Parts: sequence; structure tokens; C-alpha cells
Amino acid sequence: MSQQVFELLILGSSSASPTSERNPSAQLLNLAERYFLIDCGEATQIQLRKFKAKIQSIDHILISHLHGDHFFGLPGLLSSMHLLGRKQALTIYCPKELKPIWDLITQASDTRLNFEIKWHFNCNDGLKLLFEDDKIEVYSFPLKHRIFCTGFLFKEKPQLRNIDKWQLEKLNISFAEIHKLKKGLDAIDNDGNIIENKKVTIDPPEPRTYAYCSDTIYNEKVVDYLKNVTVLYHESTFLDDKLDRAKKTFHTTAKQAATIAKLSGSKKLLLGHFSARYGSLQDFLTEAQPIFENCELATDGKKIKI
Amino acid sequence: MSQQVFELLILGSSSASPTSERNPSAQLLNLAERYFLIDCGEATQIQLRKFKAKIQSIDHILISHLHGDHFFGLPGLLSSMHLLGRKQALTIYCPKELKPIWDLITQASDTRLNFEIKWHFNCNDGLKLLFEDDKIEVYSFPLKHRIFCTGFLFKEKPQLRNIDKWQLEKLNISFAEIHKLKKGLDAIDNDGNIIENKKVTIDPPEPRTYAYCSDTIYNEKVVDYLKNVTVLYHESTFLDDKLDRAKKTFHTTAKQAATIAKLSGSKKLLLGHFSARYGSLQDFLTEAQPIFENCELATDGKKIKI
Repeated sequence: MSQQVFELLILGSSSASPTSERNPSAQLLNLAERYFLIDCGEATQIQLRKFKAKIQSIDHILISHLHGDHFFGLPGLLSSMHLLGRKQALTIYCPKELKPIWDLITQASDTRLNFEIKWHFNCNDGLKLLFEDDKIEVYSFPLKHRIFCTGFLFKEKPQLRNIDKWQLEKLNISFAEIHKLKKGLDAIDNDGNIIENKKVTIDPPEPRTYAYCSDTIYNEKVVDYLKNVTVLYHESTFLDDKLDRAKKTFHTTAKQAATIAKLSGSKKLLLGHFSARYGSLQDFLTEAQPIFENCELATDGKKIKI
Repeated sequence: MSQQVFELLILGSSSASPTSERNPSAQLLNLAERYFLIDCGEATQIQLRKFKAKIQSIDHILISHLHGDHFFGLPGLLSSMHLLGRKQALTIYCPKELKPIWDLITQASDTRLNFEIKWHFNCNDGLKLLFEDDKIEVYSFPLKHRIFCTGFLFKEKPQLRNIDKWQLEKLNISFAEIHKLKKGLDAIDNDGNIIENKKVTIDPPEPRTYAYCSDTIYNEKVVDYLKNVTVLYHESTFLDDKLDRAKKTFHTTAKQAATIAKLSGSKKLLLGHFSARYGSLQDFLTEAQPIFENCELATDGKKIKI
């Protein structure tokens, strides 16, 4: 059985100001055909178009914090969703100060959206479930930045066990009993024989996880929320020669991001949120890989399978 | 004597939503080395970079109205000006509802700019002088849109008369008397002879004007403010087969924009603010030119000498 889709599209990888190569922070995550927009820097709607993403598929927008490079694209995106005829509700998970800003903007422009926004205000008190359905779970967790800021954790739920079709064809068994097998239980065939689960099923794929950490100072406490994640995105605004600047501005260096990936037992590290001062980004890999080898740059337009 | 610079750079020509070819409204006007940003749709700072404009040269930003496609790029631009080290003050001419939006944004992000913003709140009561110095004048005037909206008019002041250098070399005359000649008066040479102005001076270039009309329903009253302008930018969101839609949304068709250009005695018409529904824009010219021939599309990246 094939795995459900779990794919990330990087829409912006710049910190603070955009550069000619890099837009401010935004990522689109497709997890089991649920689309999550993570942060929404200026011109995110333009990036979504450029990379051929379906704007109206997004039903959840998560905003980590209210520095402009993480949300200045939101009003334009919401306006375009409205103008393009959206009717279905949209949930925004964000710091509570965002709603009054949006309310003032819509008042000033005399705009009334044709779709409902469901507001969820993030809190910074440990791991919090934001969203859950039959296939996935999404959580927020606290980050340590100059202003209130949360990271996000996306998890697949354990999938049902896969039936070995070769074995199944030999059995005389009802649908109800097959479902028991999928759930890991033994079953009984139509002749009353016990079918041992392990003989006719195979393990489902290991549930995968994606964690998003931007923006934050180096903070080992965050490791508690990141145990063994499949892919960790961690900001690396600076290289380690700018460690003082990183501390002062509550950001992280590539070396520090790699250390967090190592401490948490992450399988893979994505680096992003690069300061506009850097042209080439090769040094970020050079600095991170001796500490954590499976490391990649999360540059604009890149697609990453989780 | 060469004319002072009077040049327009189109940064965005789309209405409402951006397209892959067109950003929302923004223009950069260089008038005698004073730089005016006219409207500031989302991603204007990215367009400024793309077209190699000097962001910190902008000392005046004029916002016509508070529909998002005309100001959603402003918070990001101001943030980048700050991050890039701006110290000199900036004047923003805008509807009064913009300031509380900006105040909330800076509160939420705990940002304090390193430069002063001087706020000027536009009013809709006739022609109003916004800015004046020794060389230029800038005015606002009312437009008729769904919400409060103003146009802008940029004028050169009449320049001093040019001295005919061939004639001047023959004269024995003081600097003070030359200045009288430049101002159009007769002068007296060092021997007491009267020098007739018209014999030694030539007319300076005709003062040029640029008018910006976006967004507005077709409204002949605006012609009073546009008499004989050198270049008129007039929105043309739709073609004339969408006249009903234009009326309903308080916008203008290409045919109507051409009629305003004709009625006002404009020398040249720029069309812009095109609806995202149009791919090719050739039909806008085809529709406008039978009414007003000297007509051009104000597409992204185009430079127009006024």
C-alpha cells in the first residue's frame, strides 16, 4: 500500500527583508490532501501562483508570530481568496493580536468576505492540539523569540495494518473480520477458524512527523517537542560567526540548528530564514553538516517529501 | 538647457489580485530628483528591487485609497526601509484610517522605526496642495469610488527663462541683472543701456504635469482637475463590454478612460489597473485609440518620460 502524501513546498526562505532570490517566510504543507499554509510573508500569494499551488485548497493557515516577514502577505491572500469566489471556511491559527489588525483593514476597505474565518488564538503553554481528524494531528509548541512565537508539529496518525493480499485470497472471511485484522486483532473466518493477525498482515508505514521552528533563539528546551521527528525545519538566520547578532536578535545559527536536530533525534534537517546579507547559502550546509549530516537548504520553490 | 527629470516607473498594473505578469498598483515618480511612490500594492518592495529603484530615495508615499491592492505592500516597505538603516523622515499622504492600522501592526510586532513618519491625511474637498518646493507642486483631488479615494497631480513650477549664451557673451552685465533677465524682466548693463528681455532670452520648457486617477467610476467632473495635463494615468479596469460591471464596481473602461483624456485635453494617456481576467492587453489600446490616439499601456517595469 502506498503512503499518503506528506509534502512540503517552500514559498519563502528569507528573514526580515526579501532578496531577489528569496521571499519572506511561507511554506505549504500537503498532509493527506489537507493543505496547511505555514506563515505568510509578503507576496506569498504570488509565490503560490508561481509554483502552481492551488490557493483555494488551503483550509488552514498557521502564523507563528507577528513580525511582518511572517504575516504581511496574509491580508492580500485572504482578499484574493474572496475575489476568486471562495465560499468554504478557513481556519487561522495565530497570535490573538492579528484579528484586530484584520478587522481594521476590512473596515477601512469596506470589505466583507464571502467565506468565514475561524480564528484560533495560539497559546504558549506547552504542546497544544490545534487540529485533528481521522488521519492527522497538528500541534503548536512554544518558541523563544523577541515576541510571542510558536512552532508547529504535524503528525500522521498510525495507519491501519496492511492485509497481505496473497494470503487474503485464500481465506473465506467477512468484511467485518478483515477490519479487525487491519486494526491489529486476530479474526475468525466463515468456517470458525482463528486467523492470526501476524500471518496475514504487514506493518503499516511508520507515522511521519514534520516540525516547524521559526523564529527562535537557540533553546534546548524545544527538543522535548521534537523527539525523533522525520523532518525538522529550523531557522538559521545567521552563520556562527554572527553568533552575537543571533543572540541579540533571538535568532539561531546554522551550527545551533544542527545541534537541535542532533539532540532531538530528527531524521532530516531543513535550514531556512536566511538573513538577506547572505548571497550564496553553501556555507550554511558546510557549517551544519559536520554536526548533523542529513541537512538541506529550504530554498524558494523546493519540494520536500517528508 | 536640458529639462529636469520627470520620469515614471510602473511597478504594478493589476487591479485587485496580482497575475503572473502584473503586480497590484504602484508607481514610482521621479520629478526633479524628488521621488514619489504612488500607491503601494503587495510586493511593491520586491518590484522596486527588481527594477533597480533606490528604495531609500523615496521621501513621499501617496496612497489613493484603502483597498488592499493599493496599500498592502506599505507595511513591508516601511519595515525594509527601517531594516536597511533609514534615518531620514518619510511623508505618507493617505486616508486617515491607515494610521491606526499601522499603529496596531507596529504594536503587535513590538517595532519602533528608526525614522519619523510624517502623516498627512488626504481630504476630498477639491484640489488640495500636498507638497511644494522651489521646483514642483503636488496636489490631491477627489475621485469617485466605492470608498474614499483621491487622485494626485504633479506639476513642475515654471522655470526661469534661458539666457541666449551667444548674446550674453557680447554683454557687459552683472549677475544681479542676469537674474532679472531669467525672471523675464528687462535689465541694465554696466554701461547703463537697457537690455530688452526678449532679445537675449529664450522660453524655458513648458511646465509639465502628471495626473494619476485610480480608482474611479467614469466621472466627467474630474476633467476640471486634469486640464491639458502632459500625461494622464487613468484606470481602465475593464473593456467596454463589461461596462455594467465597471459601473457596479465603481471602475472605468478603456473607452471611458480615453474619453476623459480627450475631454481634459491631455497630451498622452496611460492605461492601467487591468482586471486579472485579461491576459493580452492589446484590446485596451484597440478600444481607446479611436477616441484618444496617444495612448499607452502602463505595464509593469515600463518607464515613461513625462
